Amino acid sequence: MSEFTLKKIGVVRSELKKIEDCPLQESEQAPEATIVLEEEFAEGQRDIRPGDKLVIVTWLHKADRNVLTTHRRNDTSKIFGVFSTRSPDRPNPLGLHTVTVQTVIDKRTFKVFSLEVLDGTPVVDIKVVI
Amino acid sequence: MSEFTLKKIGVVRSELKKIEDCPLQESEQAPEATIVLEEEFAEGQRDIRPGDKLVIVTWLHKADRNVLTTHRRNDTSKIFGVFSTRSPDRPNPLGLHTVTVQTVIDKRTFKVFSLEVLDGTPVVDIKVVI
Repeated sequence: MSEFTLKKIGVVRSELKKIEDCPLQESEQAPEATIVLEEEFAEGQRDIRPGDKLVIVTWLHKADRNVLTTHRRNDTSKIFGVFSTRSPDRPNPLGLHTVTVQTVIDKRTFKVFSLEVLDGTPVVDIKVVI
Repeated sequence: MSEFTLKKIGVVRSELKKIEDCPLQESEQAPEATIVLEEEFAEGQRDIRPGDKLVIVTWLHKADRNVLTTHRRNDTSKIFGVFSTRSPDRPNPLGLHTVTVQTVIDKRTFKVFSLEVLDGTPVVDIKVVI
């Protein structure tokens, strides 16, 4: 088998509406964001509490999946193999974001900081940071 | 859109042939493993060097995708929402593994340590650790 089906488990709600709004890195003044899970996956959230450190895995739906070489952020002087970068443009555009839970809004909604993805970006996994 | 197609970009070759062979955590005597990329994605590896720290993202193909609550490793006394665990059993069974490159074998093959997944586990993404 050479392809797998990833299910959207939720979505990111954010003030970042366009690519130009996005800071380059989580630490640089990225705003808080809200994770809204699909109803059918809500049970998976039941033990998430303020202060928890999580990895949010997103599907960067605006990415170019044909990229195999690209530059690193802030440095356009050299081209690297894409697996030596964090570029969103890559064969499988998965985003990994380490965040802290700020508030739990309801049983399928919680706020995190900081997360620099576009409003509407699908969420495909959430893991606790050990 | 509520589903996305993940492409297999490579495979893990390992001495771990059965689930029972797997240590629970990367740090506990997991053996070295070899990443073999598909020919079409080899160019993405071109700047990977010994000593590089990478995140290998795998597709844990033996996982149970219907799990929304489970226990944490080593502790069966309490059940958690799956997003508060690192269990391989989860709606989208993505594995995140921080490894160090040991040797580059050829233009689509390199050895890493330590990586505790079964031989034959698909690789879906590789990112440099910043």
